[in-house]
Amino acid sequence: MTDKSCNSQLSEKFIINKFLKKLNLDTVGTFNFENDAAYLNSSQKNKIVVTTDTIVENIDFFKKDPPESIAQKIICVNLSDISAMGALPKTYTLNLSINSNIDHIWLKRFTNQLSKIQKKYNMYLLGGDISRSKEISVTVTCFGESKLKNIIKQKNSYIGDDIWVTGDLGNSYLGYKIFTNPKLIIEKKYIKKFKNFFLYPEPCMFGSKISKYINSAIDVSDGFNGDLQKMLNNKLGAMIFKDSIPISSILKKILKDNYKSIKFSDILSWGDDYELIFTSFKKNRKKLLSLARKNKVKISLVGTIIKKNGIFDDSLKLIKNISSFDHFC
Amino acid sequence: MTDKSCNSQLSEKFIINKFLKKLNLDTVGTFNFENDAAYLNSSQKNKIVVTTDTIVENIDFFKKDPPESIAQKIICVNLSDISAMGALPKTYTLNLSINSNIDHIWLKRFTNQLSKIQKKYNMYLLGGDISRSKEISVTVTCFGESKLKNIIKQKNSYIGDDIWVTGDLGNSYLGYKIFTNPKLIIEKKYIKKFKNFFLYPEPCMFGSKISKYINSAIDVSDGFNGDLQKMLNNKLGAMIFKDSIPISSILKKILKDNYKSIKFSDILSWGDDYELIFTSFKKNRKKLLSLARKNKVKISLVGTIIKKNGIFDDSLKLIKNISSFDHFC
Repeated sequence: MTDKSCNSQLSEKFIINKFLKKLNLDTVGTFNFENDAAYLNSSQKNKIVVTTDTIVENIDFFKKDPPESIAQKIICVNLSDISAMGALPKTYTLNLSINSNIDHIWLKRFTNQLSKIQKKYNMYLLGGDISRSKEISVTVTCFGESKLKNIIKQKNSYIGDDIWVTGDLGNSYLGYKIFTNPKLIIEKKYIKKFKNFFLYPEPCMFGSKISKYINSAIDVSDGFNGDLQKMLNNKLGAMIFKDSIPISSILKKILKDNYKSIKFSDILSWGDDYELIFTSFKKNRKKLLSLARKNKVKISLVGTIIKKNGIFDDSLKLIKNISSFDHFC
Repeated sequence: MTDKSCNSQLSEKFIINKFLKKLNLDTVGTFNFENDAAYLNSSQKNKIVVTTDTIVENIDFFKKDPPESIAQKIICVNLSDISAMGALPKTYTLNLSINSNIDHIWLKRFTNQLSKIQKKYNMYLLGGDISRSKEISVTVTCFGESKLKNIIKQKNSYIGDDIWVTGDLGNSYLGYKIFTNPKLIIEKKYIKKFKNFFLYPEPCMFGSKISKYINSAIDVSDGFNGDLQKMLNNKLGAMIFKDSIPISSILKKILKDNYKSIKFSDILSWGDDYELIFTSFKKNRKKLLSLARKNKVKISLVGTIIKKNGIFDDSLKLIKNISSFDHFC
């Protein structure tokens, strides 16, 4: 609470009317943001899947980052979790804590990007809250829908299960390294490309397509090894076929050129790829490959669930560096 | 992302296991917080009502505030919105951005208070996220349930409607003034009492009981006048019977003793009372008074909805100070 008088044009009401109202798409239940609460306009047949994430300035992004990147990141981390549960995204709420560095242009760019992402993933903004803080902080709570029987658990693998991963790993990590290490040897034409993998991550929304055929899934938000370790839940192990890890040929070459600065193991220990790791019975291989083709998603068979705790390579060497990124390190 | 190594005991995993897991009450859909998302275990007959609020250090609370107060405030602001929609609370998600000032004791006290509030309002924790930031920031997204036909709109009053308010106004505002103005004349025995009104606000959960009989409702989170103004939506007006505004006799005496420091109009322009303002047809008076008695809620008839824009007192004088608290002032 404060006793200060109100002068700024950037009042909560102004931000809602000017920048946020366009995002509710006049959907029933949002009350055009004129209520303090809203209701979900969901199908009665489905369960509502909920996930929430906060990203904070100087931890997950920087003041100078494009507002489009901040919008992309906060939606991506949420959608990726919705996908890993086997659900389809429907709507989201937005809590925006902003400071005096935030002006009309920032808000316009940020919300225009949200608008683009909404269209792509068929979502609308349900409601939210705006507050003031020293550092910018953005929370999104995302709502998806799925039939109860198709909701995927994260820790439900069986010994002998195939371990799959979507897309390519390491692209976002290289982007991050380019920002932090200007001495990397890399062709100019690739610099922007990899920076963009880091700034504008894309979630892999394959979860709802394969939910019937897999046993468990997780999104790669803290590095492949750490996220796989979470799936194993200290109860099972994994053997990984090192050569099957999907890495683009460009990244392979860059790793070779920079072997002193970036190790292959870094690619597996760090990085928010937002690809999916999933496990499934061997009998579903054909079906999964067919669904992948149909949905134009690359999937790679990278390992097997084993009884012995830990993550091993195919020389049965324990991959020791299994610590994934933890915001509280 | 960071390359720092991990040493602290306060890892995300530790906080979840030690302090947060107790709050899910083993409810189906939470996956005991071992998934990155959860699902709502709701009744198919009802709509899910959603509200979200963020409170930030140095704006809505201070570092030295008791953790119990921060927990109470963030849940109260959300429950109050759920009540104003006519819904019953069911569950909530928690996004906690904390810094190195937060230790085991703080987390224990904060989550113990959440546990107490959960019991009182029959809720469980659905999921959440933990992040690091310079200033503490807490976001809660709260989920309630209501039949669609009983969901109350905020801006749905009719000319001639009664205007009601629950409880007493101004208690929290006086508590705030005691913290900021040590020169107030006030008996010692009341100091703690009013400070607690400010530190530990209680939502008025009367909304779901009266939803069938009222036309619109809002919670008093930014001051009576400002919140009433929001209901009127620049389309209608209100005439307020000044003497009917519910103020406790103790507060009345304190206002008299401090007439130079606090004005009566301040009580209506500031303060997060978390009472409800609601409007209803005159024919429902008896029913509302009976429901109030039955639920042990004090309600006061404080005015009438009129055609002329603005808020007027019963001398038809325009109450000019209708600016309510805006976080972006």
